[in-house]
Amino acid sequence: MHTFILKTRESYFPYTRWHMLPLDSVTLTGGFWSHWQNLNRRVTLQHGYHMLEQAGNLDNLRLAAGLIKGQYRGMVFLDSDIYKWLEAVAYELHVNPNPELQKQADDVIELIAAAQQSDGYLNSYVQVVRPDGRWADLDFGHELYCAGHLFQAAVAYHRATRTTTLLEIATRFADLIAATFGPEKRQGTCGHPEIEMALVELYRTTGKSAYLDLAKFFIDQRGKGVMRGMGWMGAEYHQDRVPVRQADRVEGHAVRAMYLNAGVTDLYLETGEQALLDALERQWRDMVGGKLFLTGGLGSRYEGEAFGDPYELPADRCYCETCAAIGSVMWNWRMLLVTGEARFADLLERTLYNGVLSGLALDGKHFFYMNPLLSRGGYAREPWHHVACCPPNVMRLLASLAQYFVTYDDTGLQVHLYNTAVINTALASGHPVVVSMQTDYPWQGQVKLSIQDADGSTWRLRLREPEWCSNATVVINGQPVEKLTTESGYVVLERAWRPGDVVELTLPLEPTLVEAHPRIDAIRDSLAIQRGPVVYCLEAVDHPHIDLMDIRLDETAPLRAVWREDLLPQGLMVIQSSGYVVDGEDWQGHLYRRLSDRDGLSRKSNPVPLAAIPYYAWANRGANPMRVWIPR
Amino acid sequence: MHTFILKTRESYFPYTRWHMLPLDSVTLTGGFWSHWQNLNRRVTLQHGYHMLEQAGNLDNLRLAAGLIKGQYRGMVFLDSDIYKWLEAVAYELHVNPNPELQKQADDVIELIAAAQQSDGYLNSYVQVVRPDGRWADLDFGHELYCAGHLFQAAVAYHRATRTTTLLEIATRFADLIAATFGPEKRQGTCGHPEIEMALVELYRTTGKSAYLDLAKFFIDQRGKGVMRGMGWMGAEYHQDRVPVRQADRVEGHAVRAMYLNAGVTDLYLETGEQALLDALERQWRDMVGGKLFLTGGLGSRYEGEAFGDPYELPADRCYCETCAAIGSVMWNWRMLLVTGEARFADLLERTLYNGVLSGLALDGKHFFYMNPLLSRGGYAREPWHHVACCPPNVMRLLASLAQYFVTYDDTGLQVHLYNTAVINTALASGHPVVVSMQTDYPWQGQVKLSIQDADGSTWRLRLREPEWCSNATVVINGQPVEKLTTESGYVVLERAWRPGDVVELTLPLEPTLVEAHPRIDAIRDSLAIQRGPVVYCLEAVDHPHIDLMDIRLDETAPLRAVWREDLLPQGLMVIQSSGYVVDGEDWQGHLYRRLSDRDGLSRKSNPVPLAAIPYYAWANRGANPMRVWIPR
Repeated sequence: MHTFILKTRESYFPYTRWHMLPLDSVTLTGGFWSHWQNLNRRVTLQHGYHMLEQAGNLDNLRLAAGLIKGQYRGMVFLDSDIYKWLEAVAYELHVNPNPELQKQADDVIELIAAAQQSDGYLNSYVQVVRPDGRWADLDFGHELYCAGHLFQAAVAYHRATRTTTLLEIATRFADLIAATFGPEKRQGTCGHPEIEMALVELYRTTGKSAYLDLAKFFIDQRGKGVMRGMGWMGAEYHQDRVPVRQADRVEGHAVRAMYLNAGVTDLYLETGEQALLDALERQWRDMVGGKLFLTGGLGSRYEGEAFGDPYELPADRCYCETCAAIGSVMWNWRMLLVTGEARFADLLERTLYNGVLSGLALDGKHFFYMNPLLSRGGYAREPWHHVACCPPNVMRLLASLAQYFVTYDDTGLQVHLYNTAVINTALASGHPVVVSMQTDYPWQGQVKLSIQDADGSTWRLRLREPEWCSNATVVINGQPVEKLTTESGYVVLERAWRPGDVVELTLPLEPTLVEAHPRIDAIRDSLAIQRGPVVYCLEAVDHPHIDLMDIRLDETAPLRAVWREDLLPQGLMVIQSSGYVVDGEDWQGHLYRRLSDRDGLSRKSNPVPLAAIPYYAWANRGANPMRVWIPR
Repeated sequence: MHTFILKTRESYFPYTRWHMLPLDSVTLTGGFWSHWQNLNRRVTLQHGYHMLEQAGNLDNLRLAAGLIKGQYRGMVFLDSDIYKWLEAVAYELHVNPNPELQKQADDVIELIAAAQQSDGYLNSYVQVVRPDGRWADLDFGHELYCAGHLFQAAVAYHRATRTTTLLEIATRFADLIAATFGPEKRQGTCGHPEIEMALVELYRTTGKSAYLDLAKFFIDQRGKGVMRGMGWMGAEYHQDRVPVRQADRVEGHAVRAMYLNAGVTDLYLETGEQALLDALERQWRDMVGGKLFLTGGLGSRYEGEAFGDPYELPADRCYCETCAAIGSVMWNWRMLLVTGEARFADLLERTLYNGVLSGLALDGKHFFYMNPLLSRGGYAREPWHHVACCPPNVMRLLASLAQYFVTYDDTGLQVHLYNTAVINTALASGHPVVVSMQTDYPWQGQVKLSIQDADGSTWRLRLREPEWCSNATVVINGQPVEKLTTESGYVVLERAWRPGDVVELTLPLEPTLVEAHPRIDAIRDSLAIQRGPVVYCLEAVDHPHIDLMDIRLDETAPLRAVWREDLLPQGLMVIQSSGYVVDGEDWQGHLYRRLSDRDGLSRKSNPVPLAAIPYYAWANRGANPMRVWIPR
């Protein structure tokens, strides 16, 4: 076997099965995700900058820097939106150098530098509103959270541009935090996890082990049950009920839970401490077995934006915050690196195509905060939010999306997601390996991988067989592979790869009906439609003169996939089927009646054609009623 | 026809069909509600006093009075709990004079007097914490809300004891409020309705029309869309989205909505303004047709403790605040007075036996704030709450319960609720009318009414035929009434009533299965058990070795009512039936799967006996899992 590419401290983590490629090793060159990346590049990032100006985020920094006079605006954590936007810009610059965009970012960085205090402290809210209030409210003050986002932006910006200004701002602040918090210093940690993964990343980039130690310290601070909670919820809101190593379920604020788990996984990647991985695995099983929405969405409750009980999965009032789905992508990605098991990539993919992508409108300028699976109408994406964590989170995810497609190990390459792309890497010998991937996934299940450069040495190409597919086939250079080897959910193709080799992977894509665990009351006796990784929904605009709430699915009717170029800007695969409308029952203005009061004969059903669109595309034609789960 | 009793300004409202009797005209002398009234008298009221001392409510008043030094404790509206407790004590004293209890109350009143400021202002939070902040935050400050509870307590205490101290405190404060707010004075009203009904009652007791004018002013202030809202909710949280006369739905915070509607109905009772009644009727239909839980509970969302969309009625995360159910009783009672239509009494009864009564533990010392229809375990009543509006609300309702049983008009008496009781009133001539009611309702459907005093003149006795009963029978002096006259849901018995006349009403009580409107997703394909007005539930403690979440109801099995003296302190009618346990399906740690993945043969069902207890009695044997709606 050959070792792929030179190991760097930034990407080659000690306790991992698979390794990340540098962001620019994979370029999405067309197809589904390329469209979204282009939209992000062309529209969303600049919309974001405009909103950071309009909502006061940048002015808050100017106030802190003494450049203007006025009042602080917005929530205490407004700095973090700027940092996430900068991180997104960094990923953009990494793959598409753009002097104009870099100038825009550098100006923001200059502002950040001006706002930073002489000892390294940086938080516009505290500096402007409560100058004596540093670290005064760890539970809800979000100071370490904002710092974490600064560090992530700094690491990304340094990798992209090799400039050091932002990284220096970050390390000065990180040094102050390390001098403030720690064993025999100030105890406690931030109510909102985030700084944990940021510090691990800062360690990877700078090599300073103090940052890794501090990440571990903050992780070890959790679970003392001292945080104030929220509403009817106690310390579990902040994942402070039990120590991290004893956690056996996901609970509390969903975004906090995902960010913490991503950070804990980062710590595992560096330390290999088994108790951490065991706790993460328990939580993952708890989540997937009882607290996960079909879309990959997380969080069942508005109150505390939180996980609910097992099987508490309401379609209408699920929270499914866009940030929670993004946090799940971040955590599942790290678990995939650690374990090499496809179940994490499966959930990552489900989340990406559904629960994350629904967060962004097709126009690139409107965002969902909550992503319900049922709407009775009136719910629409907004240009920005009072708590605007989600929009720049979508931006940084889309800009960095290519990093989730391919990994490497000593035996070869692993392809986790499918999209038209070019993979450009190298063997340890220095010889380039270039693979071109062409596909119309997720609309079509054919994926063609062409080896464009290779040195003829033997290595393994692993291709993920998604959870929704049980009959993948592979043809290499026109020859069907009779007996596919699969391992942990990946088809393993080992051979001496030569330029011109062509692998044709086929993942048969059929629309299917999905049923839910019978303990989920909220969607009892209902079915959903899925095709490949894409979850579908019925939207009222496609069913005029019918109330969506009265529709029943005819589960015996065929499901037909039909391409509709016209329907929404990008074109969509629609699933046609049929159902009926429950009609003719007069409940006389009441909600309940004796079972015997029902006149069985009065119930009429009128057959109707149904047309389901991908869930992510709903509410782009008005704030329509919508439902994913359709009663049988 | 004869006119019943002398009309008084306090009970005889101009625009009403039926009139209230003085509280001491009906005495509950045994049976179901007598038990609860005795518990309230013996245990709950004194527990409440103890908690008012412990939670700081009384100390806050002492701080305001300058009697002690220290910090204000708790939420801004803690005074209101004291006033509600006093109101409950007043009802007690009204029917059971008790010098010791009156002394306790008088001491509290003395404290209130000491805390009141020289110009009449009274609010311990503002006086202690923000002395310059009078009326500074109408949306959330609760000053007028607290004042309203003071006025209600004062009116009740004056009626009970004829002492004037508290009434004078109330009118001095009311005069200050009237001098502060009004046309050409300060505009705006309280975020939390309450003062509206209180001012109307103060007007009835004092005869000062300025209070009625002020009630109307505050009602007219609503609907300007200026209040700040809560979380994702806007001004509708405070019923401030549209003017009261344009309201077409119940929305926002459920308790606020009920209190406001009760106050608006009070205003209608005095003014007869049709637009008010039309708006109330629209809201009632919206509530009953889309936003009502089977228990009479109201409020579908934790966020904002609020009504949801039509048909958004989750069993697990319904809010169903005890106060909202009590508010519904107050509003429906007033609508019943106005219209004389049994539908309001039906809902009042449903709410009383289920959504209200569940708020109080069988020990009289623990309280639910939320009253869910499904619990997965871990939810229990508490001795008091951080926001302790519910406990004293239960106290004042139980203490005043007798007022809801009987009304009068020029034609006779109307009996709305059934319980062993003595009705003691008089004709306008002064001749007494005494009726004894004996029944084991709601466990048995026989109600015996004996005329103990009457002068032989002709009048009508109206007896409500509950919504759940369609085959009531009446026997008078041993003779069945062949053809019953019913009017607006009431059996009308007109005759020359003489001492010794006996009316035997039979309301056949059979356990029945209840189904729900198919638009309610949360309980799709599920049934509930009801017997008479009592809604039943399954509690885990009665079904050992079975997970309640896996139970299915066998709807073909007979339902048997069985008296269980032993089960809980008071004895209970249990409903026995049978169902089965869904077992043998292995979801392999997942929540979703392709419909075709299911192995139809692997699904096993084990028959199990089921024993349902009244919903109000659950969680008295531990924080058990519980469900009202059982999948079919």
